[in-house]
Formats: sequence, C-alpha cells, structure tokens
Amino acid sequence: MDSNTDYIWNNEKVKEECGVFGIFDNDGHDVARLTYYGLFSLQHRGQESCGIAVNNNMAFSYHKDMGLVNEVFKDKEIDELKGSIAVGHVRYSTTGSSERQNAQPLVSKYIKGTLAIAHNGNIVNTIEIKDELEKNGAIFQTSADSEVIAFLIAKERVKCGSVEESIKRAMAQIVGAYSLIVMSAKKLIGVRDPLGFRPLCIGKLDNSYILASESCALDSVGATFIRDVEPGEIVVIEKDGIRSIKDNCTGNSRMCIFEFIYFARPDSVIEGESVYETRKRAGKILAIENPADADIVIGVPDSGIDAAIGYAEESGIPYEIGFTKNRYIGRTFIQPEQNQRETGIKIKLNALKSSVNGKRVIMVDDSIVRGTTCGRIVKALKEAGATEVHVRISSPPFRWPCYFGTDIPSSNQLTAYNHSIEEIRQITGADSLGYLSTNGLKHILKNENFGYCDACFSGIYPVNTGKC
Amino acid sequence: MDSNTDYIWNNEKVKEECGVFGIFDNDGHDVARLTYYGLFSLQHRGQESCGIAVNNNMAFSYHKDMGLVNEVFKDKEIDELKGSIAVGHVRYSTTGSSERQNAQPLVSKYIKGTLAIAHNGNIVNTIEIKDELEKNGAIFQTSADSEVIAFLIAKERVKCGSVEESIKRAMAQIVGAYSLIVMSAKKLIGVRDPLGFRPLCIGKLDNSYILASESCALDSVGATFIRDVEPGEIVVIEKDGIRSIKDNCTGNSRMCIFEFIYFARPDSVIEGESVYETRKRAGKILAIENPADADIVIGVPDSGIDAAIGYAEESGIPYEIGFTKNRYIGRTFIQPEQNQRETGIKIKLNALKSSVNGKRVIMVDDSIVRGTTCGRIVKALKEAGATEVHVRISSPPFRWPCYFGTDIPSSNQLTAYNHSIEEIRQITGADSLGYLSTNGLKHILKNENFGYCDACFSGIYPVNTGKC
Amino acid sequence: MDSNTDYIWNNEKVKEECGVFGIFDNDGHDVARLTYYGLFSLQHRGQESCGIAVNNNMAFSYHKDMGLVNEVFKDKEIDELKGSIAVGHVRYSTTGSSERQNAQPLVSKYIKGTLAIAHNGNIVNTIEIKDELEKNGAIFQTSADSEVIAFLIAKERVKCGSVEESIKRAMAQIVGAYSLIVMSAKKLIGVRDPLGFRPLCIGKLDNSYILASESCALDSVGATFIRDVEPGEIVVIEKDGIRSIKDNCTGNSRMCIFEFIYFARPDSVIEGESVYETRKRAGKILAIENPADADIVIGVPDSGIDAAIGYAEESGIPYEIGFTKNRYIGRTFIQPEQNQRETGIKIKLNALKSSVNGKRVIMVDDSIVRGTTCGRIVKALKEAGATEVHVRISSPPFRWPCYFGTDIPSSNQLTAYNHSIEEIRQITGADSLGYLSTNGLKHILKNENFGYCDACFSGIYPVNTGKC
Amino acid sequence: MDSNTDYIWNNEKVKEECGVFGIFDNDGHDVARLTYYGLFSLQHRGQESCGIAVNNNMAFSYHKDMGLVNEVFKDKEIDELKGSIAVGHVRYSTTGSSERQNAQPLVSKYIKGTLAIAHNGNIVNTIEIKDELEKNGAIFQTSADSEVIAFLIAKERVKCGSVEESIKRAMAQIVGAYSLIVMSAKKLIGVRDPLGFRPLCIGKLDNSYILASESCALDSVGATFIRDVEPGEIVVIEKDGIRSIKDNCTGNSRMCIFEFIYFARPDSVIEGESVYETRKRAGKILAIENPADADIVIGVPDSGIDAAIGYAEESGIPYEIGFTKNRYIGRTFIQPEQNQRETGIKIKLNALKSSVNGKRVIMVDDSIVRGTTCGRIVKALKEAGATEVHVRISSPPFRWPCYFGTDIPSSNQLTAYNHSIEEIRQITGADSLGYLSTNGLKHILKNENFGYCDACFSGIYPVNTGKC
Repeated sequence: MDSNTDYIWNNEKVKEECGVFGIFDNDGHDVARLTYYGLFSLQHRGQESCGIAVNNNMAFSYHKDMGLVNEVFKDKEIDELKGSIAVGHVRYSTTGSSERQNAQPLVSKYIKGTLAIAHNGNIVNTIEIKDELEKNGAIFQTSADSEVIAFLIAKERVKCGSVEESIKRAMAQIVGAYSLIVMSAKKLIGVRDPLGFRPLCIGKLDNSYILASESCALDSVGATFIRDVEPGEIVVIEKDGIRSIKDNCTGNSRMCIFEFIYFARPDSVIEGESVYETRKRAGKILAIENPADADIVIGVPDSGIDAAIGYAEESGIPYEIGFTKNRYIGRTFIQPEQNQRETGIKIKLNALKSSVNGKRVIMVDDSIVRGTTCGRIVKALKEAGATEVHVRISSPPFRWPCYFGTDIPSSNQLTAYNHSIEEIRQITGADSLGYLSTNGLKHILKNENFGYCDACFSGIYPVNTGKC
Repeated sequence: MDSNTDYIWNNEKVKEECGVFGIFDNDGHDVARLTYYGLFSLQHRGQESCGIAVNNNMAFSYHKDMGLVNEVFKDKEIDELKGSIAVGHVRYSTTGSSERQNAQPLVSKYIKGTLAIAHNGNIVNTIEIKDELEKNGAIFQTSADSEVIAFLIAKERVKCGSVEESIKRAMAQIVGAYSLIVMSAKKLIGVRDPLGFRPLCIGKLDNSYILASESCALDSVGATFIRDVEPGEIVVIEKDGIRSIKDNCTGNSRMCIFEFIYFARPDSVIEGESVYETRKRAGKILAIENPADADIVIGVPDSGIDAAIGYAEESGIPYEIGFTKNRYIGRTFIQPEQNQRETGIKIKLNALKSSVNGKRVIMVDDSIVRGTTCGRIVKALKEAGATEVHVRISSPPFRWPCYFGTDIPSSNQLTAYNHSIEEIRQITGADSLGYLSTNGLKHILKNENFGYCDACFSGIYPVNTGKC
Repeated sequence: MDSNTDYIWNNEKVKEECGVFGIFDNDGHDVARLTYYGLFSLQHRGQESCGIAVNNNMAFSYHKDMGLVNEVFKDKEIDELKGSIAVGHVRYSTTGSSERQNAQPLVSKYIKGTLAIAHNGNIVNTIEIKDELEKNGAIFQTSADSEVIAFLIAKERVKCGSVEESIKRAMAQIVGAYSLIVMSAKKLIGVRDPLGFRPLCIGKLDNSYILASESCALDSVGATFIRDVEPGEIVVIEKDGIRSIKDNCTGNSRMCIFEFIYFARPDSVIEGESVYETRKRAGKILAIENPADADIVIGVPDSGIDAAIGYAEESGIPYEIGFTKNRYIGRTFIQPEQNQRETGIKIKLNALKSSVNGKRVIMVDDSIVRGTTCGRIVKALKEAGATEVHVRISSPPFRWPCYFGTDIPSSNQLTAYNHSIEEIRQITGADSLGYLSTNGLKHILKNENFGYCDACFSGIYPVNTGKC
Repeated sequence: MDSNTDYIWNNEKVKEECGVFGIFDNDGHDVARLTYYGLFSLQHRGQESCGIAVNNNMAFSYHKDMGLVNEVFKDKEIDELKGSIAVGHVRYSTTGSSERQNAQPLVSKYIKGTLAIAHNGNIVNTIEIKDELEKNGAIFQTSADSEVIAFLIAKERVKCGSVEESIKRAMAQIVGAYSLIVMSAKKLIGVRDPLGFRPLCIGKLDNSYILASESCALDSVGATFIRDVEPGEIVVIEKDGIRSIKDNCTGNSRMCIFEFIYFARPDSVIEGESVYETRKRAGKILAIENPADADIVIGVPDSGIDAAIGYAEESGIPYEIGFTKNRYIGRTFIQPEQNQRETGIKIKLNALKSSVNGKRVIMVDDSIVRGTTCGRIVKALKEAGATEVHVRISSPPFRWPCYFGTDIPSSNQLTAYNHSIEEIRQITGADSLGYLSTNGLKHILKNENFGYCDACFSGIYPVNTGKC
C-alpha cells in the first residue's frame, strides 16, 4: 500500500534514524539474501519500513514497504531480486504517522543512468537546498533527505565526470549528519559526513565488499570487519577493487555518543570500541560516582542490562534478574488504556517478586526521557516488595534535542530540561537517583581522545543547526 | 506494497490507458467519496491501480495502490481523505508487469507548493523531454508521463506567474495524447491536448464543478453534464468559478475513434455522440455492408452486444442471447492450462445451446486482435449445434499500433496485419467474415464532419510519433 | 479467519442456498482443479464461502474459507489438494452475519472412517433431529444442516452395512429439501430428496463421473451431461462404476420453479428444460397476458434480459438495451448512503438515455421482492426521458416465504404480501404493472406435466414445514 | 483461513502444549480484553493459534485463528466479543503442519446449551474413547482432545444433573494430563487431572474470578493470586461464588518438572515455588555437582540465563553477557540455508566477542535436545575467542518422550538417548560437559516432598501411556 493520509510537507520532514547495508559481489553470492540478513541484524535501528534495491548488469529493481524485514520480505521477494550489487535500508519512524513514500532505498533515474540511495542521518539545511533546487525546476515526491541528496548528485553530475566526484561536490552543500550508501550502474559507494555523526563500516566476505551501519551486520553474514569509513571519506567499490576519496576528511570526529549508550547493538564494534564494553564501563563509573547501599543490582531490559552488570561488578553488589520481559509484543498490539495501566496491568515488564521482595534494589537504566515509564517501573518494584529502589542512569541527563538523526523529543518534553535531579527523583518515586556525570561520560570509551557529539547532554552542537 | 521487481527504465515506458476524475467542491460534499464513485464508474478504463488525492486547505494527502477501486479503498481510506478539492485516477496495465510506483495521481512538491496530476494518454516525445530535463539535473522516480509533465510545469513555473500559464507553456513542449487533471493549492485544472485524442468533460453538482473522462462518471454521482473540454483547452476551476484558456486550441480534432467502438462505456456521451448509438449504428451499417443469410444474430459479450442489436434491427433477423458469461472472474482467477482450454473447458463464456442449436448464426464482435479468441468462440458455437457461423466485426481490420494511449499490440501480433480477410476467416473457422469498411466507419457518428484518429485502421498518424 | 462474533445458535440456523460439485476420477485428472472450475461456474448459487475436500487413497484433506472461489483458491491451495475423489461447495449467505464455521464441505470422522458432505437445500425438521441426537450425547459445532446429516449417517452406520444404506435410513428421518454429495473412503454418492426440490445431475468426463448442481458445471469442465439424479435417488459411484438405490423414490417431483425463473444459470438444462428457454417462454406468455402499447422492450440486467427478449419476440416491439451495468462491484464496495441514493447516485445501473429518451418503455424483470429497487429503476428511466414505463414481471407475485433453501424473506417484507398489484404499481411509480399469472407459470416448461413447487407464489407447501 | 491440506486423522493426533485463561466477571470488566492480556502473557506456552470465546447472557460468540495473540486479535475483534464470562487459549504446534480446525476454545452445542472448552495437556487414551463414542454414532471434526472431552461431557450430561457432575464423570474415563477451563451457560469451571500434570491457578480481580495456566497471567491483568487448583479438583465459579468438587482428588501430585526447568515463565509461582528461584537453584546445584575452572559464566538466552546466574553466584565466577540475541525473528523469517549456516551466518545469536575473547567460559543452558544447536553455539564462542567452553546443563539428560502435553521428540531423536555424556561432549565440541543429576533435580524445589513427573529423564511414567 502506498498510503499517505497525513498532511504532506506541512511538517518539516521525517526523522531519519536508520540502518544501511550494501554489498558489491565478486563471488556469486545471493546479494539480496545477504542484504536481508544484514538488514535483519540492523533491525534495532529502524522498525517502520525497509527495502532492498539490486543492480543486475545495470538494470535496477527493488522492493520496499512498511514493516519489519521479515514481514516485508518473503522468499518470493528475495528470489526476484537478482543482481550483483545491492543496497538495503531499515527506517525508524518517530510517530504513528508513517509516511510510506519515504521508504528507502530511493531509486531514481538521472542523467547518467540510475542511482539507489540509502541514507542514515539528518541534514539540517534541507529546506535551503530544496528551495534552491525548486528555483531550478526540481519537484519533490517525498520528504526524505535521500531525495535531496539524489537531486544534488544529479545536478553536479551534469558538470563533472563521475558519480563520486558529484557526491564530493554535493557534500560541500550539505550540512548535517549522514552516512550514505549509493549504488550506481557500476559502483557501490559509501559516504560519511565530515564529522562522522553516524557509523558506517567496511567488511569483506570472500572477495566481495560490504558496507554496513554496524559491525554486527558483518557478523550476521559471516563477513570480516575491515575498518570504519572515516568521517568525510568517500569509499568507492567497483570491479577493480576499493579506493578512497578523502578530500572532505577533516580529521575531526563528532561521532554520536548516544550510539554507544543506547542505539547500537552491544555486539557491534564502532571506532574500535566494543559497544558492550562502553556500556559496562558506564555502569562501573556510575557505581563509583553514585554508590548506594543495597542488596541487589538489576537492569531494566534490554537497554539497562549491560550497565547493570558493570555496576554490580564494580560495586560488589550481586547482579540479579529484576524483570520478566514479554518478547511477543508486535506492532499491532492493543495497548492497555490509561486507567488499566494505572490499576496494574503489567504487559511488557513484570517485576520478578522472588528477586526483589524484601530487598534494597539498585535499578540501572540507560536514560530517562519523559520520566513516566521510569516511575511506573519503580512503582512495580515496590509493589513486588522492594524496600528501596535506587535508580541509576548510565548517561547524563537529557536536556537538548538532537538534529542529527536520533529521535530525541524537543526539550519541553524532556524531564531533565524542566526539572532538577531531586525533582525527577520525586516524580519517579525513587529513593535515590543518580546520573552518570558528563565527566564520567568522557571515560566510557577506551580511546579518551575520541571526539564525540554530546549535544543532547551539553546543548553544544558541533554544527549550526539553524534552530536557535 | 511498493514493489518493482521488473527491470526499471529498460523498457520504454508504461502505456497510459486510464480514467481521470476531479472535483472542486463548493457545497460541503465528501469529495473523496464522490471521487470513489466517479472512479468506480470509470473502472472499465483501467483495472490495475487507482488513487485519490485531496487538498484540504492546501494540505495534500493521498492514497493509491494496485487493485480495483473497491479493493484499494475501504471506508477507512475514504474517511481519512478530507478536503475540498480531489483528483482521482484508474490505470490500466498492458502486461502482468505492474509497476507500482507508476500509480497515480502523482503528488509532488514544487516551487509554488504541491501539485497532484492525473493523466490519461501517451506522450510520444517523453524520452526527448526527459533527456533535456536530466541535463538540468532532474531525477525521475517513475516511468510515468505524469512525472515528466510535473517537471515541465515546475520548470515553467519558475519563469511565469501561474500554474495555468505554466501548463500552457508545458503543452508547447509535449507531443502526443493527454487529458489531464491538475490539482494545485487553490485550483482544479482540466487539460486536453490540441488534437483531443482522449475525452474529458465538465459537469456540475449543485455549485461544485467536476471533471471526468466520461459522462457516465457524472451520472454516477448525480451531476449534470455541462460540456466537453475542447481540444487544446485549459479549464481553470477556482473559488471564483470556471474559466478557459484557449491559446492552444487549434479547432482541429483527432478524437480516438476506438473510444466509440470499444473503450468508452455505452452510456457515456462524448462529443455529442451517444457511445451506445454509435455502436448500434456501426452494427446497422455492418448489416448493410455485410449481409448474411441466417436465423439469428448474437453478440459476443459484452463488447459485441450493442452492434449485434443494430445488426438485428437493420437486417430484420432476430436478436438472440448467444452466450452465458461468467461474471465472477477476478484478477486472481487460475487460468485453465492450454490443453484444458483445447479439450473444452468453458470458463468465461458458454454458448447457449438452446439458442444456437440447429441455427445459422451471425456472430457480431467489435474487433479481432490476435484471432485466437474469435476462433475459439466460433468453435464453441459449432459444438453447441450452430450449423453456420457468420462473423461480423463492427470496425475495420486492426493493422497498426496505437501510440496515443490505447493498448493495441504491435503490428506483428495483429492478425489483420499479417493476413487477408479470407485467411482470417479460415483461421477462425467462420463460414463467412465481414468487417465494417473504413467508409462505413465515417458514418457511425451522427456528426459526419467530426475529425477523428483512425490510425489503428489506416496507419495514418495525426502527429509524428517518432516510431517510423 | 475462523470468526464468529454473531450469537451462535440463538437464531434458528443458516439458510442453505448453495451449489455442489463432485468428481470420482478414473483417468488421472486433477480433481481439485476440475472442482475449482465446476464451483466457479456455480458461483451464482453462492458467493459467501466455498470449499473443496479431496480423498487421496482414503486420506482426506480440505480447504475452505469465506470468499469467492477465485479468492479462496490460488494455485498453492489447488496444488496441495491431491486425490482421486473430490467434493466442492459454494454457499450463499442471507445476511451480513457470515457464520464461518458453516463453510462446507463438512469433513468428519465417524465409525467407519471419514466423510465429506456438501449440501444444497434446507431441512425443516433440523431442530427435532438435533434434540433427539443430543439426547444421545451428540454435540454440534456448527449450525449447518450438513452436520445433522453427518450425525444421522454416523448413527445409522453403527447399525448397518454401508454408507449408502446409512444414507437411505437417514433420509427416512429428514424432512425438507436437500441435494447432497457425500464422499466416503471409497465412494462418491449423490442424493436428492424424495421431492427433488433442488437440482443435481450426473455427467461424464472420459471415464470419470461427475455430480453437479447444474449442467453448466459439466460444460465448464468439458464433461458430457448424462442425466439428472431422480427425486429420492441415491447414486453410488465407485471404482466398479455407477449404480442407483431408488427405495426412496416416489415418482413425485416438487422441483423449485424459482430455479427456472431466477436461480439457475440460463445455459443450464434441468429436468430436460433449458433454463434460458423457460425464461424466454415466460416473457412470451407475459406479453400475451399483459400486453402494453410501447416503443421498446428492455430487461433489467441480468435476470430480466431473457424474459425481455421473449416479450419482444412475442409482442413484435423492438428489444433494446436499457441500462449499463457496472460489472466491478465487489464484496467490499462502499454503498452510497441513503441520501446519496435518493439524490441520484447511480452506481450499479445507469439508464441508457439514448435508448429510452422519448420512448414508451416496457421494462421486464423476473420478480419484485421489496419494491424499492424496482421503484428506483422506474424513476431512473423516467429521469432518462422515458415517457411511460410499463413494468412486466415474468413470475407471479411473491407472497410466501421459502423453507426449502431459497433466500426469500418473510412475508411481511414481501411487497406482494402486503399490497395489491395496483398499490405496488403506485409504490414503484410504474405506468402499468403486470405479473405472469399462476396459470401462465404452468406453461413456461415444455413438459406441462412436470410437478413443481410454487409455494412462494401459492402458499401451498408440499411438505409440512412446521412453520404454521 | 480454514485450511487443512495435511492428511487428516492419519496421524495419531496433535500435541496439546498450551495455555488457558478464563474470567467470570462480576464487576463490569471488558472480559475479552482482559483475556487478551492474559493470553498474551501466556504466549510462551503456545504460538501457533489462539482464540477467545465469550458468553453474553448465554449467547456465545468466539474468534480464533492461526497466529500470535497480537496478530489474531485487533481492536475490532476484541470489541465484538462482549460478554460477562470468557475463556481463551493459546496453542503450540510441534510441526509446520498446523491443523487449523484444532484451534481452541472448542465451542459446541449439546443437550443443555453451549459449552466452550480450553484444554492444556494430552489425553493418552483418546483413541479408545473415540472408538467407544463412534460406536454410539459420534462424529469428530477435529483431532483435538477438547472435542473428545466435549463428547464425554455431553454423553454424561444426558444422565446427570449438572455440567460439573458430567465433568466429574467424564474425568473417570480420561487417562492423561489435562488442565481444563469449561465455560457453560452460567458457569466457569476449572479442572486439573488427578495427578496435576499441568498447572492451573485461581486469581481474583475486584469481585471477579480468574483461572489461568500460570500466575504471570494474573499479574498481567492486575489480579491477585488466590491458590492453585488442586490435582483432581473441579472448581465451579458462578454468580453465587466459587466452590470445589474434590471427589477426584487423590492427594497425589505428578506435576511436570519441566514446567519449572523450561516451560513456565520465570515470574510465575507454581505450587508455591517461584519458577525463577527453581532455575537459579538448579544453577547453584549444578555448580556444586559440576564445577569448572573458568573465568566467566554465561547463559544461553533466554532459557539458560536464570540458571547461569545461580551458577555464578554459587561458584563465585563472574556472570557475563555472552550473546546478543536478535529479538525480531518472526514466524515468516527466511531461514539461512544449511551451507550458509555452516559458513558463519549468525542470525539469531551472536557471541559477544568482548566478553568471551581470551576467556575460559562456562556456558549454561537448560537442556540439550538434538545437540546440533548446542554444538553450533560452542563453535561460535570459540570463534569469538573463548579458549575453553564448559557446557553445563541445568537438568538431567533427556532420554524419554513425553506423553503428557510437552513436545519432546521421540527417543531416537534425543541425543542423550543414543549417546553417552562423553559422546555428547565430543559432538558439541565442548571442553567439558556436565548435567544436573537426578538427585540434584530433587532439590531444585523448596518443597522437597513435592511429587513431580520426571518421566522424560527417568522413563518412569506415572500412568500407563499405552505406548510400551
């Protein structure tokens, strides 16, 4: 279904929190099937829509739709996508309003043939670029950044000699966060923005090259991790092999720290850092910064578990399972009504009474956004018999919106923007509340010189977002 | 599903045999629901995909998908399409390869806001226009003419003061057949190409204006027929009322004669001619030109019935029902295999033995394309006991392909291109075979001065199609 | 979906207006596929649900669901139904409340193996039989007669030596209308009730035998008509051939006359009578009984067409096409609201202005049930310019409900039960109104001695229905 | 879809591993919605099909289908199921052959009205009972035990004065494992077989009573746990309150020990035992019985986690996260082909390199069935850098099939039936392998006198299964 019953273009544009995967085959692999598995392992980066485009001797075909990877693709769809190059995409939606035409990859014909583009990130000067393009007669059928990028590449391609050169020139006009995979007639091209907000890595499977948002996608297809694409780098994969254009590299990195804290999968390694290790380390520092006198440490599934293990290890307080999580909640689940929620319907998480009853509990989670969920969990623990609940958060308080492709709501919805820590403690009903300090945050990565973006905590944006 | 597993852009482009409907409301009508009924009455013009776009105070929303009108739209979809202007489209596919992204209306953002375009026809210089646009950086996401038209309008809009002026300028660059409905922020605009290949008419419902491919769509919503849009005319409907731009009018008409013979619905009136009457008249002339000594006249359902009644009336030979047609064949019907078909499986049509047994039968149909179906029907009649079968065709032999939006196959698939009438008679097994003469064709319309396109019969194309 | 959200068993039971088809293969035919085509040609007898059961060396499998034959069965379903005996069913629902568990064939295991039963008709003493069976511990999972029949057969099977003997004994306990096809481990058995209310005929395809509700189903698979099953006859088809049990034959027939007037397909031959011919003959008698001074004769599609042709032939008044019927209305069509209907929305039928304008019209239909549809059509004809509309009905007035498997509403909903003919004329707005007389009805069949049931016209029920 | 394309009744019958939930409302709750949440929390007990039946003043309605709770039920389905008593069911399928007609609850009409039955367990003398019932004329439309139970109740009901009395009498004829919820015109009845193989508990929500397979379902709707139904007990809930029939109680319990080890949810409390605690305790005993010299303890998600925490706690070796599990695998996931699996495709589990690299690992799981999965996981750990992998299993070796409703394959598929522990160690590639001893098993429950069934480990069946 190609449905768009929400207003179009009234709202600025969709958030682009996504995962990308591409393969240039030299071994006779089934590229669509490998992309399917790659996207599946990146599903945590986007559950709203997905798509795969393939290039079969310069003839492009694609399939994309709303839904999870295993809903959108069945054997039939995969079997029909024959080719030797593929690019895939999973997309996250920030609201119920799912604008279907924004599903990616975007496949479009331009002066030199066909391009398929998969994009992760958020361009902050989209409107300015669109205005300029429209003045030259451009029309837009979607509100996705990828269409803007396609137009920029097409516009530059008229004036220069190759796709990669067009991409390089287009990058000069784009401000913001983007990791791209571009499939052209004969090439697969990986791109990261000059500050490297979003991850993108290179892998190898036999003689074939792979690009992916996270290294867990390489593992999922049995490929070997080669290296991360550098901030500002353009990686061109073609029949002859792989090469780099580094004209836009600045040596500066502003990798999103939130990828480590929450967004990436624990088994991924990004910029040489094991995501799992950074989370455990955050838990350990949290234990040092915010100790508590308690009997057990528990984590809120799934995002708080890793830090909880770190906290327990550092503090010497035993780690325990605090909750049973129902794994079967699908997209069409009927949510309990407000009054049911308050009178004790426990659908998704159920506190494990035998663990927490009569205990002083340290409850670790990765972040507090609005505070209501946290409060509900604290209440459930107390009802299950916890005598004290000490909430520990493995990142600093969220105070600022993100303009670089992560779906963090605007400040007035962020509890920490409106309230002091003591107020939040009262709101959530916790006996004590402690956050990781911004100083502590600096030490969750092994490489302490690594440049990252922590604008959501600090309010300091590495580029002009045009929002203030 | 947004699926395209066929090669994209390798093939020239899709055929655009379609129906369009638009309404500018001044009375508080439910525009989406009226468009639903309008499209439903135009379903015979296209069964592959359909769509409706609405404009609600300049906010556009739409829903489109593969399938029949009553499959794509349920109460939910209609209810969500609120607005005061609407445009809808039904589309026909010539092959199983249904390119989903080509569903219409095409909704796109351009320099002055948003446009929705519904198109019926076929532009013959698409490739030349696309090449030119791509040289200026344009990208194309579909292979539909409507996207080309949208780009031309957007390009001209930069240089001039209104949508209608942009359309007028765009028309100067387009060669071919097109009836368009364009919905902009504040206007609903109807357009016919300068030769008026495809029909488009204007209706009124209370104080609201309607545009539709055929007058039967006006009847279906209870509207009154006002007049046809003239060849080359641009009709602009806005809050203040309705007005015309006739700069591109030539006074010349090349309306497709096949609309009367087969394509339009019998209850439509086009260019002042009742479609039903033209068919009956074709049958009468056929009876004069090709008499036969027989007991009964029958028509092949549904397209041969009207001419059969005319033939019977003129010849004085009784009209009879010759076949029972199964009305339940849907898109997913499992076709009988070749050998089953030959051994007598009669799924769609069953000859009515009690009518034809022992009779000399005149069997009237509107045309013969490949000849195989006709032969199968003649055989079925003989098996049902017909002693003679005299085939009479209410149009001249098909010999030439159509480049103006009607799906007639290329010449080498047309029996009449490859064979004499006597050979076709032998192929079909008919006892005699007679076609309407091209001279007879001239008289099927009341207005004998009316200029029409009969290129499929004559090979004389009114514009340079670039194909020869 | 197996959904039943209506109350169960509160209402008496479902009406069983249906079509049945069965094949015992001796030639290696694909029995499921042939049954698919057979059911498809019987689709007019039931559009709510359908099913096919096959017997593969005594292993039974089946597929059934709500929907049309071409919706429920795709290649996959047909391919999985391998076997050498098959039985199929199409079912009609009288209301929106579609009780899914009632889909047929009913497949059940009993003392001697498995039985599949397809049933057309209506048993009038169901409740009495169920009460008796329940007293012996029976449970019922559906409200369909076929389950009652299965229980009776199972009960008798304990006491006697064969399925056919059990069926014979079961028939002694059943009052009402039923044509059955029963598939057992090694046999295909056809049964008609002793009065033969519903049709059932025998055909042959190569060396294989077929049973079907109507002969058009034999045509559809290329089979030859052998004969009708006699009222009260049990036809047993097995490896050795075909044989009959006629113990329950009475020599008496009460075939439903409505099968000829409306229900059966015109190309079927039932009891030696061409359905089409009976309809034409009804039209001729109607013309004699109810002449009118008029310019043209038209039929209401589709059921009034055949009689209209007879009326025209007899009266010498020219037959014309009066309406264009939209063929695309599917089950999910959004009905116009009441006020739209009255203000002129013409969705299903559109009067053909060029035929009727300025004419005195004789409009023939097969029956009037509630009168509202007829009135709406008369109004449409007048709006299209008809100067007079003379309604002629090719059957006597409907006054009594049917308890034998035809969905005719209860008397208080029947216009003719509540009103005189003159009153109905006024209600419908016709200039004159004439029905076929009950005397005329006697002559619509060639065989004037044929015994039929006309209870819906006469109120004389051939068996005690327990309703009065 | 009501599809059964597998052979029917050729195979013995379906396994009945399931969850049940019922509510008798006295407060005006939305019983269907509460049942929805209850079933959702029991989803781990069965993912193949589900259903809900409601009783609205003695009018029954239901909805059931193949699929997960959140797939089968949307708002519409729930909204249509109005009533004051409800019963629901989730069902597990052992194979791809999903026999749809076996979905529960089974709703059937019998001599005293209507019954809805939801069943968890497996009756071992089904065939004998069916044979006997068929001799009295019974027919069976499904292969589910619930239909046999319904027949027995109906048969007894003819002879006695109440449903509960009929149930009591039926129990005397049934051998095997069953926890039942029966909904009649005015009652909700809970039943456990005399040995109490399967769990069933009673809860209260305001003034309404609930029956559920596990206490986690009570938590999910905010109800309070009252007590377990006793082995052999019949609990009758009606307007007047709740009462018990204990004539079939033996004081003997043979609760399935596997419910504690694997099947039940960790947050459930069964027979006074916290499931989570029993699993942790199993891990602790395992650590004592089978120590290993290692650096970390990890659990195989999700079933091995709880025991791993116990093992770590007892041994003092740090607990670590060993794997990332992909949570998005749905029913339609395309499985990797055999060769892909062997060449390293890691879809469901990915070993967490940063945890295990360079470490000696103790890997805890709840059981080994065929051995292939375990071997694959060991291999993955070694590839991720584990220097040693010591496999520890928190239950004794599986050697015998289960006839009481748990899907354990036949012995010849059980690795432990065919191989010594040392052989299994070699097959899985583990450096050492240790199982919980049967003596250790005795101590995983707090109540060491509790009688349980461990036939799958011991081969000692508490009732005659008729299989040997």
